[in-house]
Amino acid sequence: MDLLLAKQRMHEARVGRLGTVTLDGRPHLVPVCFALVDEVVYTAVDAKPKSTLKLRRLQNIEANPATCLLVDHYDENWTHLWWVRLDGSARVVGSAPEEERAKNALTVKYPQYETVAIPGPVIAFEIAAWTVWP
Amino acid sequence: MDLLLAKQRMHEARVGRLGTVTLDGRPHLVPVCFALVDEVVYTAVDAKPKSTLKLRRLQNIEANPATCLLVDHYDENWTHLWWVRLDGSARVVGSAPEEERAKNALTVKYPQYETVAIPGPVIAFEIAAWTVWP
Repeated sequence: MDLLLAKQRMHEARVGRLGTVTLDGRPHLVPVCFALVDEVVYTAVDAKPKSTLKLRRLQNIEANPATCLLVDHYDENWTHLWWVRLDGSARVVGSAPEEERAKNALTVKYPQYETVAIPGPVIAFEIAAWTVWP
Repeated sequence: MDLLLAKQRMHEARVGRLGTVTLDGRPHLVPVCFALVDEVVYTAVDAKPKSTLKLRRLQNIEANPATCLLVDHYDENWTHLWWVRLDGSARVVGSAPEEERAKNALTVKYPQYETVAIPGPVIAFEIAAWTVWP
């Protein structure tokens, strides 16, 4: 898979899995909706039911920004399998214009956001490396 | 989601995402085929093309056994979303009978393993906690 195809697949993917590391050094995974804007991935804490907006992924990022996003395709024909993994570091978006830009990108990609609010923080994940398979 | 449904979904899932932590404290994610046997998840380094059998996930587990397995369902109707996350610790299987049992379980679940060899090590992931959403 070349980088151009990897980027296209990242743009088209409806869901990715975001990995962070907890304060006590354990991996923490969560499925996320996301939008890729240039070399930044935006994902938001939205109004899908949560027990709290103070999510563990936010605590994790504050202590250790190292983040991984995986998008993969499963097929019973194993010659059709592929995945794209992004490694980088994440931060909680603090500036209003960047937050607005992120929310716009998410709403363009996911019409669901026209009716599901995004009250929580937006995470910006700066990509440092692309890894593709095969 | 109750635990019974979570277990059923884990048994039925064709792919999960395995998270480990690298030696330098970064999250590392990879999609895996797996079989759930009682409270242990088995996954194998199989003959799908790899650059090496000395995979990073094995190095990670040896240094830090903390492991996370996520199975999720995406649907454009966001009221149908769900995920199940397993937290626990992983080890490379050393005993021949356990390796045999794991390979059998994997081959029962994935007929593909009748033609794709499993030359590499088997990982046993002992589940410490189930987390379900919603």
